[in-house]
Amino acid sequence: MESNGVKSDVKYPLLSGIEYPADLRRLTVDQLPQVCDELRSFIIDQLSVNPGHLASSLGVVELTVALHYVFNTPDDCIVWDVGHQAYGHKILTGRRAVFNTNRKYKGISGFPNPAESRYDAFIAGHASNSVSAALGLSIASERLHHDHKVVAVIGDGAMTGGLAFEGLNNVCVNPNNLLIILNDNNMSIDTPVGGMSEYLMAITTSPAYNRIRFRMYHWLKKLGLMTDNKRNRILRMANSFKNWASGSHNIFEGLNIRYFGQLDGHDVRQMVKILNDIKNFQGPRVLHIKTVKGKGFAPAEQAATIWHAPGLFNPVTGERKKSAPQASRYQDVFGETLLELARRDERVVGITPAMPTGCSMTILQREMPDRVYDVGIAEGHAVTFSAGLAKEGLLPYCNIYSSFMQRAYDGIIHDVALQNLHVVLCLDRAGLVGADGPTHHGAFDMAYLRPIPNLTIASPLNELDLRNLLYTASLPSNGPFVIRYPRGCGEGVEWHKDFEETPIGKGVAYMEGDDLAMLTIGPIGNVAGRVAQRLCQAGVSTGWYDMRFLKPLDTDLLAEVTRRYRRIATIEDGSLNGGFDSAVLEALADMGVSMPVKRIGLPDRFVEHGSPADLYHVLGMDEEGMFNSLNAWGM
Amino acid sequence: MESNGVKSDVKYPLLSGIEYPADLRRLTVDQLPQVCDELRSFIIDQLSVNPGHLASSLGVVELTVALHYVFNTPDDCIVWDVGHQAYGHKILTGRRAVFNTNRKYKGISGFPNPAESRYDAFIAGHASNSVSAALGLSIASERLHHDHKVVAVIGDGAMTGGLAFEGLNNVCVNPNNLLIILNDNNMSIDTPVGGMSEYLMAITTSPAYNRIRFRMYHWLKKLGLMTDNKRNRILRMANSFKNWASGSHNIFEGLNIRYFGQLDGHDVRQMVKILNDIKNFQGPRVLHIKTVKGKGFAPAEQAATIWHAPGLFNPVTGERKKSAPQASRYQDVFGETLLELARRDERVVGITPAMPTGCSMTILQREMPDRVYDVGIAEGHAVTFSAGLAKEGLLPYCNIYSSFMQRAYDGIIHDVALQNLHVVLCLDRAGLVGADGPTHHGAFDMAYLRPIPNLTIASPLNELDLRNLLYTASLPSNGPFVIRYPRGCGEGVEWHKDFEETPIGKGVAYMEGDDLAMLTIGPIGNVAGRVAQRLCQAGVSTGWYDMRFLKPLDTDLLAEVTRRYRRIATIEDGSLNGGFDSAVLEALADMGVSMPVKRIGLPDRFVEHGSPADLYHVLGMDEEGMFNSLNAWGM
Repeated sequence: MESNGVKSDVKYPLLSGIEYPADLRRLTVDQLPQVCDELRSFIIDQLSVNPGHLASSLGVVELTVALHYVFNTPDDCIVWDVGHQAYGHKILTGRRAVFNTNRKYKGISGFPNPAESRYDAFIAGHASNSVSAALGLSIASERLHHDHKVVAVIGDGAMTGGLAFEGLNNVCVNPNNLLIILNDNNMSIDTPVGGMSEYLMAITTSPAYNRIRFRMYHWLKKLGLMTDNKRNRILRMANSFKNWASGSHNIFEGLNIRYFGQLDGHDVRQMVKILNDIKNFQGPRVLHIKTVKGKGFAPAEQAATIWHAPGLFNPVTGERKKSAPQASRYQDVFGETLLELARRDERVVGITPAMPTGCSMTILQREMPDRVYDVGIAEGHAVTFSAGLAKEGLLPYCNIYSSFMQRAYDGIIHDVALQNLHVVLCLDRAGLVGADGPTHHGAFDMAYLRPIPNLTIASPLNELDLRNLLYTASLPSNGPFVIRYPRGCGEGVEWHKDFEETPIGKGVAYMEGDDLAMLTIGPIGNVAGRVAQRLCQAGVSTGWYDMRFLKPLDTDLLAEVTRRYRRIATIEDGSLNGGFDSAVLEALADMGVSMPVKRIGLPDRFVEHGSPADLYHVLGMDEEGMFNSLNAWGM
Repeated sequence: MESNGVKSDVKYPLLSGIEYPADLRRLTVDQLPQVCDELRSFIIDQLSVNPGHLASSLGVVELTVALHYVFNTPDDCIVWDVGHQAYGHKILTGRRAVFNTNRKYKGISGFPNPAESRYDAFIAGHASNSVSAALGLSIASERLHHDHKVVAVIGDGAMTGGLAFEGLNNVCVNPNNLLIILNDNNMSIDTPVGGMSEYLMAITTSPAYNRIRFRMYHWLKKLGLMTDNKRNRILRMANSFKNWASGSHNIFEGLNIRYFGQLDGHDVRQMVKILNDIKNFQGPRVLHIKTVKGKGFAPAEQAATIWHAPGLFNPVTGERKKSAPQASRYQDVFGETLLELARRDERVVGITPAMPTGCSMTILQREMPDRVYDVGIAEGHAVTFSAGLAKEGLLPYCNIYSSFMQRAYDGIIHDVALQNLHVVLCLDRAGLVGADGPTHHGAFDMAYLRPIPNLTIASPLNELDLRNLLYTASLPSNGPFVIRYPRGCGEGVEWHKDFEETPIGKGVAYMEGDDLAMLTIGPIGNVAGRVAQRLCQAGVSTGWYDMRFLKPLDTDLLAEVTRRYRRIATIEDGSLNGGFDSAVLEALADMGVSMPVKRIGLPDRFVEHGSPADLYHVLGMDEEGMFNSLNAWGM
């Protein structure tokens, strides 16, 4: 954007002068609405040509401007919960000129990332961590006399996560001045569910209360009665009054956190005023603001779920660019197959933590809404709840993105596996997810699941494989069954076929040779298959075995491989520490077989963001890299 | 107990006639107080000679009797949260005669376990899972027309866990008749912390309200107005009235769950009456009871933390049997060393999720109470909060039992490791814990932590090693540092020495040979050392290397081993899937070395409960088993 500064200056006369928040703070309050307008336009323009998370960031434009205007960032810390609302923040904090590299390989991250900027106070990929993290920052700042003010910005969707509650429950215990901004847009990625959302509705639907509340607040302030004692009696009285006036009840005050709200989150002047009023208060506070997700872009306001991350679109008309017809997405294979299974077996139900659209459980939801349990952002509950359902005789398919399943790890061990319950755990977004980067890569699932007893763990080679695994998982007596599959499109194979049972724990020999055996799991096997053919052409007698099951591993097939080949390569789109490669090495050791093994998979570091093609290339895990390293092996 | 039936009949005239709840249900309500007295005496007698969890089970004697009296167990389900309160339940459900085998190898489990009894509706080792699990049972029962009533019994301590909140937040969403009994004893294992505990106090300190509330309830019931509609308007009105009358606010009603309380949880007649009244209501409900932990045994009432699991004691005088002086416990080495580190460095703070006594953080707490953050049962928060503290410049030592750390898995990855923060994660109770069994064994930690980038992971051989690792972890620039160590006593080595830096990623050669190299990690290395000597005596030239660091693995030392020895044995007290053994196998593969490796560690199944000696013997991991298998290897 800097390169065509003239054009920028015309379209964004104020914004183009803001490199850092210090520049923003030189403007008058009355100029801020225009800054917001320009920032909003800038985000829409940028996102229309470089896909990203649109609706959330539009919703917090005024909040973002107000926060950086009032607080002395980066010394004061803003902790964004679920970082995809932080585009405005990034643009105002030194990254406007490079915002066109957002989410691209070597470009800026789509989430706040302290390694990228001092203004990014804490990592924010997974929801609900802000209160705990910000409380830590705030208490440490107090103890170390840094005098940094700390603000956590958390949406109502993220408030359903247990971690957020654990954080809230601890806010009042130790001295701290944490300000929590509850950004209530009645919308996580999909519509929020659970008591909390009804609850917030109840808090905020008493305009009479709010008028009185704020008048009282300003009156007390004028009288000098609104002082900074941590347990301000008058405030507490006002809070009780509020409870009475609103006929409502307030969880925050119950947890000894002062509550202010609700405020119109799109009135930037008002927000600056209130933030200035309360920023120096002592003790933890909640400011409850109401915003509209997608604000200022009509199509997004009307359909925030679609416009959460809309892809390319026309910034004027809102027409979304259709991508060329491609192979089916894995998530749709899941969704359609689940619907078929549900039609055949009334025990089948779907469980999702706030991702019905993302995992295509909407396909089942549309036809049989009472068969889908969307539990909100609450991965732990999703798994333990599924265990309860299974214990009583239902057949739950619980779908959670691979990296979010990390949140439910204990539930898998303690509630599902230990009782050997027939729960089907579907891990979408396994392997590298691309633009969302290291917080979202499904890199660790095979390694963290493999130690858990009683699990069957499979990864399909393609769409048809996924379909049949989903079917096989429904058959009697299989105990807990894990299926992990990637984000995005499949291989384009025809998969609308009759169900066929997949033999549990059996791999498939796709190509045979006698020098090098390539053992694969998951869709990266398709790349390996092409590499195997090229190796054969290059004179290396290569076999290719899709093992399909991480656990139980097909040791019969492996034994055959050891008899037939001179060396083995293992190939997986997961961590090399303890993953599929280790399963093979352990089995070989137990067989007493010693032979050379080359391990191809994700290295022991957090992989950056960027297109999967870029990332696999950099890691030497695309066709070219894999061919080159295997062809060179043993030269 | 059956074997001396006469004596039993005299001391326990009613209890001895109760094999199953059906027998209990044949008694009159007026006989129940005596049943409670006998059950309480029986628990005290049994626990005095066979150690277990005393105080919790004494606190719920009346509740247990009332529940089995009113509900048609086992068709109706009781889900106990944190199963160590379930001894009374076990005694009334077919296990009185074998209760003397409680927690012993091949005896009954110390926790509810569906594999042991149909009356155990769900597993209950880790806190806070009851609401989610019971909600699953309840919804499935509804959908499958089983008409099973489901009751979750959750203590106030467990209510601070995020999972419990996630469950509560979903209770109102789908049709179900779940009854949640909130057992409020103002006491988890240690004193509960956080807003929730103050909150519950506020709810329950309005006797005027409670009188009015219950009168109104009975009056409405008489008039036939207390009907079963899920959203009973009159009840809701009553609830609003309650809010006004009590000047309080109620989270449960905020979440659309009907609230009844508070009740005296030691008045069994009253509880039977109320449970009978509300058991057929439709829709989710909370019944809030107040109990005293340790009730009926004066020493336990006065010091519930000590009497949580008191060991052997005199059932009359309450005198606790001192065990013979032994080596220091690892937890005390942690506690004392942490205090020393805190004295030296003001950045050092301790974080524990409700286990200050169990991990001996009380040693620091007594001297510097403001340096310890006990966050309640909230493992996820404990880790993410620690990340926040570290980000701002403190040096947090976060101590969580190995199996509970499973609850914080995502926090380690997303909040700590990804930002490479200097947090010291101390995993107490690693390896087999003994009597608590499969829910509590620290079996998986090495396997689940190893894939996480940026972690340094160590396990000490003995007390001195632990002390120096704790010191080393405090030194600059080490990033996240994990130290895992077992439950119980150390090796008796002198450890009160000056701090010495442990070289990161370096193993120690304790014995050298040229045939078999035993590579170990953690205190099981001491057993291996003895085995190595016996193997040498038996003519096998054996070396012993304590690798000390799981990550980074000492590949230089390993390379030396491969040059010197013919074969390797790996020895660890953790899962063989992806653990230390895999680390060694992966390193060998990457070195291009092929040699025989024997793997000794925990097998791919959940290990039962029993004394560690029994368990390691059964697994062939005691000195004898290890010697035999290695001596036979290669014969």
